[in-house]
Amino acid sequence: MGKTEITAEPGIPLIILTREFDAPPELVFRAHTDPDLLIQWLGPRELTTTVDRYEVRNGGVWRYVQNDPDGNAYGFHGVFHGDPSPDGFAQTFEFEGAPGHVCLQTATFDDRGGRTLLRTVSAFTSVADRDAMIGSDMERGVQDSGERLSELLARLQAS
Amino acid sequence: MGKTEITAEPGIPLIILTREFDAPPELVFRAHTDPDLLIQWLGPRELTTTVDRYEVRNGGVWRYVQNDPDGNAYGFHGVFHGDPSPDGFAQTFEFEGAPGHVCLQTATFDDRGGRTLLRTVSAFTSVADRDAMIGSDMERGVQDSGERLSELLARLQAS
Repeated sequence: MGKTEITAEPGIPLIILTREFDAPPELVFRAHTDPDLLIQWLGPRELTTTVDRYEVRNGGVWRYVQNDPDGNAYGFHGVFHGDPSPDGFAQTFEFEGAPGHVCLQTATFDDRGGRTLLRTVSAFTSVADRDAMIGSDMERGVQDSGERLSELLARLQAS
Repeated sequence: MGKTEITAEPGIPLIILTREFDAPPELVFRAHTDPDLLIQWLGPRELTTTVDRYEVRNGGVWRYVQNDPDGNAYGFHGVFHGDPSPDGFAQTFEFEGAPGHVCLQTATFDDRGGRTLLRTVSAFTSVADRDAMIGSDMERGVQDSGERLSELLARLQAS
């Protein structure tokens, strides 16, 4: 199983993630927008994700909370720009532990002959905000998320 | 009257605008969120702005259309992230002439002893998108907007 490729060039306030999945775009998209699926793969393995709101439409609000085994809770929220579709979606993203530091995230799902190239771009309003995200042990969460999503897609296609 | 300072460094997908206004933050904020005021200053002088939707709240959708004297129409839309306030706001932004190229815009209104330092940051998901915005005769629209907003704020305070 491959890893998620992370591109974060010094001094440029972007984080670009790419990973190929052995599933069609529609299914990878559904795993991003169906909250019952999302909670099964999003984030590091030891966290439990609870969805508070997930309104998958233009202007829809989303919010989820991740809990660790020590009882700490981490909230995240944002809004969808445009109606999400298997062609892609855009949303804002804010970690409630650092209020006011919003970023924009886009995701595209490219068909690679039944497989899907997922590409997500996070655009920050400053290099400091981008670097804070990188410094937040992000890579482990990214790699865990990619592996867990691969495993979920395999289970969904086997059932 | 000063000009708007535009910062757009090569290779960095940000545009930062700063300008000081001779009005308190609450009034500068209101000029950004009351559509009846917004249409009086937004954009180049020769365009007429019509607001289609302007829902100033978390998840609220905004859309306006600008018409030039030749009959061309330019649509723009986005959503608000969080509830806008005189402390600042964040919104997404998409020019309908280039669909799919979304950016994030934040605005802050800093009190400078009764004057206001307005700072807006536009964060793009690629340098190409940022450069396309710069290449769109943006500077003239930015300078016209700043001057027109100064003039509107003076009228509002004189009346």
